[in-house]
Amino acid sequence: MFMESAPVERLLESLRRLPGVGRKTAERYALQLLTLPLEISDEFSQAVLAARKAIDWCPTCKNLTDIMPCAVCRDEKRDRTTICVVERPTAVLALEKGGGYKGLYHVLHGVLNPLEGIGPEALQIDALVDRVRNQGIKEIIIATNTTAEGEVTALYLARRMAEFDITTTRIAHGVPMGGGLEYADEVTLARALEGRLPL
Amino acid sequence: MFMESAPVERLLESLRRLPGVGRKTAERYALQLLTLPLEISDEFSQAVLAARKAIDWCPTCKNLTDIMPCAVCRDEKRDRTTICVVERPTAVLALEKGGGYKGLYHVLHGVLNPLEGIGPEALQIDALVDRVRNQGIKEIIIATNTTAEGEVTALYLARRMAEFDITTTRIAHGVPMGGGLEYADEVTLARALEGRLPL
Repeated sequence: MFMESAPVERLLESLRRLPGVGRKTAERYALQLLTLPLEISDEFSQAVLAARKAIDWCPTCKNLTDIMPCAVCRDEKRDRTTICVVERPTAVLALEKGGGYKGLYHVLHGVLNPLEGIGPEALQIDALVDRVRNQGIKEIIIATNTTAEGEVTALYLARRMAEFDITTTRIAHGVPMGGGLEYADEVTLARALEGRLPL
Repeated sequence: MFMESAPVERLLESLRRLPGVGRKTAERYALQLLTLPLEISDEFSQAVLAARKAIDWCPTCKNLTDIMPCAVCRDEKRDRTTICVVERPTAVLALEKGGGYKGLYHVLHGVLNPLEGIGPEALQIDALVDRVRNQGIKEIIIATNTTAEGEVTALYLARRMAEFDITTTRIAHGVPMGGGLEYADEVTLARALEGRLPL
């Protein structure tokens, strides 16, 4: 049948790159894309490319942005002496939705994971160190997730920051253990920021 | 933030065309597509186009296919006097997986729905009537879903078939009421085919 043909297999493989999408869901999505009018699946394909080309990393904080530097980095009203370090752009979205944080961000784009061969050089850690060295930063709030890898990354960052005359804090464990920032409600996020402790 | 920029909004709108994908899921998918390496999101975009171009409707049964006519229509070993009429290509996939059915198919690409302005001319009903008139068909098994619209479509088809000297049957209600063929297990599908009754 057509579902086993090479072009559909190729489409299924691409669809499975979406988070939480397995074989069955990919098949449902593929069937929908195959039955939509040609101009709509065409638009789908173009929209992916256009968005990917319009959005890039901010040269400073490495968050995703459509303007360079990003809206947070260019906002003079924000506290430019504090950086909140997160794993992913989704965490910035969550914190901004909470609205309680007024400092800057730094997106690592991952966490340390020796088992998968992800070391400090694979993350945006050197860029963070550069910012701390050159931009008059007074406090780093480490808001990596409360997973094993997130905790290890937090400890590693605290050690790297020890050479500078700054305060390094860890977001409080108001965020449920084992979960990601994305899934926390706004009150929990605000509490976690308030209750931060020196590392 | 970048999630509200025009290119991302356009991407979110496209992603929401996938079945069961709302705003939240579309956002998760968009973030993944935006953070994947450029060549991989490029491949994603190309895979959608390539699959859409490689797969088209079979000129006879209107099922999706990568070869013309489709694998079922060209198979001389199948019973060429029986047509099973279904709403969507997914139903053909489900029935073929069951393996109990050896006749041909006809895909309507929808069901009658007067409230949404979907009349017989919007479906592949005339093509079915042509096949019955010209291809020596002896039996039509109507396997539209057991929803209100599916039942109405079945009754409409039965009336259209009355002018021909053929048997018109309805798939037995072994398929759970209100559900789609896609969600029935293989045994239920086989039972439903066996227990079909004249309409």
